[in-house]
Amino acid sequence: MFLTGTMQINAAGHLEIGGCDAVELAKQYGTPLYIMDEALIRQNCAAYRDTLAALYPESQVAYAGKAFLTTAMCRLVAEEGLALDVASGGEIYTAHVAGFPAGRLIYHGNNKTPDEIRFALEIGVGRFVVDSMSELELLNELAAAAGKTASILIRVKPGIEAHTHHYIQTGQMDSKFGLGLADGQALAAVETALKMKHIQFIGLHCHIGSQIFDLKPFQLAVQVMMDFIQEIRKKTGALVRELDLGGGFGIRYLRDDKPHSLKEFIELIATTVKAKAAAHNLPVPKLLVEPGRSIVGEAGTTLYTVGTIKDVPGIRRYVAVDGGMTDNLRTALYEAKYEAIVANKANAPAEDKVTIAGRACESGDILIRDIELPRLERGDLLAVLCTGAYHYSMSNNYNRYPRPAVVFVRDGRSDVVVKRETYADIIRNDVIPPCFQQSV
Amino acid sequence: MFLTGTMQINAAGHLEIGGCDAVELAKQYGTPLYIMDEALIRQNCAAYRDTLAALYPESQVAYAGKAFLTTAMCRLVAEEGLALDVASGGEIYTAHVAGFPAGRLIYHGNNKTPDEIRFALEIGVGRFVVDSMSELELLNELAAAAGKTASILIRVKPGIEAHTHHYIQTGQMDSKFGLGLADGQALAAVETALKMKHIQFIGLHCHIGSQIFDLKPFQLAVQVMMDFIQEIRKKTGALVRELDLGGGFGIRYLRDDKPHSLKEFIELIATTVKAKAAAHNLPVPKLLVEPGRSIVGEAGTTLYTVGTIKDVPGIRRYVAVDGGMTDNLRTALYEAKYEAIVANKANAPAEDKVTIAGRACESGDILIRDIELPRLERGDLLAVLCTGAYHYSMSNNYNRYPRPAVVFVRDGRSDVVVKRETYADIIRNDVIPPCFQQSV
Repeated sequence: MFLTGTMQINAAGHLEIGGCDAVELAKQYGTPLYIMDEALIRQNCAAYRDTLAALYPESQVAYAGKAFLTTAMCRLVAEEGLALDVASGGEIYTAHVAGFPAGRLIYHGNNKTPDEIRFALEIGVGRFVVDSMSELELLNELAAAAGKTASILIRVKPGIEAHTHHYIQTGQMDSKFGLGLADGQALAAVETALKMKHIQFIGLHCHIGSQIFDLKPFQLAVQVMMDFIQEIRKKTGALVRELDLGGGFGIRYLRDDKPHSLKEFIELIATTVKAKAAAHNLPVPKLLVEPGRSIVGEAGTTLYTVGTIKDVPGIRRYVAVDGGMTDNLRTALYEAKYEAIVANKANAPAEDKVTIAGRACESGDILIRDIELPRLERGDLLAVLCTGAYHYSMSNNYNRYPRPAVVFVRDGRSDVVVKRETYADIIRNDVIPPCFQQSV
Repeated sequence: MFLTGTMQINAAGHLEIGGCDAVELAKQYGTPLYIMDEALIRQNCAAYRDTLAALYPESQVAYAGKAFLTTAMCRLVAEEGLALDVASGGEIYTAHVAGFPAGRLIYHGNNKTPDEIRFALEIGVGRFVVDSMSELELLNELAAAAGKTASILIRVKPGIEAHTHHYIQTGQMDSKFGLGLADGQALAAVETALKMKHIQFIGLHCHIGSQIFDLKPFQLAVQVMMDFIQEIRKKTGALVRELDLGGGFGIRYLRDDKPHSLKEFIELIATTVKAKAAAHNLPVPKLLVEPGRSIVGEAGTTLYTVGTIKDVPGIRRYVAVDGGMTDNLRTALYEAKYEAIVANKANAPAEDKVTIAGRACESGDILIRDIELPRLERGDLLAVLCTGAYHYSMSNNYNRYPRPAVVFVRDGRSDVVVKRETYADIIRNDVIPPCFQQSV
């Protein structure tokens, strides 16, 4: 059986996460329910933090909030000593309300609006990751108006783009993110930044892709970036003090997925940075990495109640659950694949090949195709694994379904970190204009 | 220029919708903003209602709420005399709060939960569209418990599946929706329903696909359904009183899209039903159609503010706007294509091929690839057309971006029907458990 983190099967044959019986969680909180294994999240934070610190002391791990962010998650990240990547005013607001130290916020995005930049300056975010020349000018102007200086990293397209199992070194220039090396735009931005009164140039950022299983492109990216750091020193005299390598380290979704160990990954990038620094006679920069999926992905489980079961003779058995593309958009967006466990009969042998359908009014709303599971019936509880990253954060109200609650579980206790939406929440912002009132 | 509904370019060279200057709307309500052309929505409702009534008096048009539903939209649908398709408890709730007559609700879905069914029975929805044998049993049981009788249509897989420009007559059995004709499941469900105490069998429903440009599959579906109605009469003696042909009639998204006229469509299905009824010596059933996209799709426009502009030399110019996949999921889900107008300089000649990027932290967040537009600069207003269906209804808070406001415009007035989300809305359901409190 494919189990993650603190998962185990208890004496009743029920799935247990964080010491909590999933059947009890369903009773207490209802379904669909996002369950987050808090111990595993903390363990992942600590693994990044400690592995990096051991191999490269001048470093910082920043959790990429876009994967999953709530006020409680901000607190956890703060407690674990990580920095936090934010990608919008809404994420900055969430961190701010949670009391997250603003100096440890790293603010990303290809199109930060003036209002968002003003807000970020006001609360004092630690780093702006500047994505374009246009943003650089806007930021300098707004910082001047606010009487502040913005500390920046410049986002560079290193010329390597990695996909899950391969990478390419051409075409990567065609991205909405970052400034090119090959066309001189990144260097021009650094030169401009160095002259600006309200900008403090701190370093560089790059990000080569998501859910990457191959280490080679990370190594190549480090080499390219270190060569660029040397070029900057030669051409401008400026030292790059921070190098942020972004995220993208792959995780397991399926039992046969085999990501590299975190240690191999960190070791490779640490060694490569040091070797390149020595070769160029450069001081080593502070190193940042930005894991999102690999902090929360495997820690999340979505719990559903089985409803309608439908046999299409000779074709397949559809088992519909009380969620779907509204809480898991990755199936529809990327045809993502998942493992599942029947939470209330986790020890029962698989004896049935079924397709798990969502309940949205959309033919494409299928969660898992052709999975072998124990014989299911209405009321059974299905746990879909590795749904911690990009699930709650991409959830929506299609068909006006309320979004599920999110609970953190640890050491036998469970705590709601996001309350279940109600029907009242769904119409909260609806307005019937006065001219409509009298008519029905 | 591609204009829809009441759109025109005013003397200032601005895009006007419903007599409202889009530049003024942006000032008043901010961007991104969903603008709905109320006159066009009403005109589309009336066209369906009147065309169908003229050609087939015993009929009912039901608006498919999943395309776009708010309390104000429910009122509009009620005022126009249409019935309303709902697909969840949340949609039923919305209609209920808006005072929509429950008897004109048609309740769809492949996995209605017991709670949703109880709610639907309680407020007295007019029709349950029963999707499976399992649902039929559950509904009969819950209706008995509530002391009610549920009036039902049975959803049938007619064996035709239409796509945008073609259709197939095999494979269509592999769907999570409906009961098969070929395997006898639909007939078995009718026979079972006829025996149930708390079920009143009214008729049949089918739906052959979405955004269909070819009329032939609609005709085939009608023929298959009418043959099945005859089979039901022969085998059970029961008369099918209602035939609901679902939705799927295609609309324009691009200037070169050429859907058939509504009249052709209605004429074809009306003629086919009557011909088949005559051939089988059957009384003609009441006919229902369920347009969603073709009521609201072309009536919606999303207004964005241009932000960062980035040239990738020799490759493309990226123009980023202040929205994207959070308000328009169809680009990421279906690679949907759109037309756009620069609202504040609508008469300026196209002189630049650009790619419109969204602001989400996701490489795939691209709204329009390679569109010819006037030269753009920061602060310009871009109107993306035909975004009325499946845009607001699928919107989400990825990156914790607040969802846009929705305004109805008509005769020079504008009314908010959905208020813009605030940052406070985004964290409204967030909870920091007590055990986290002391630590930051």
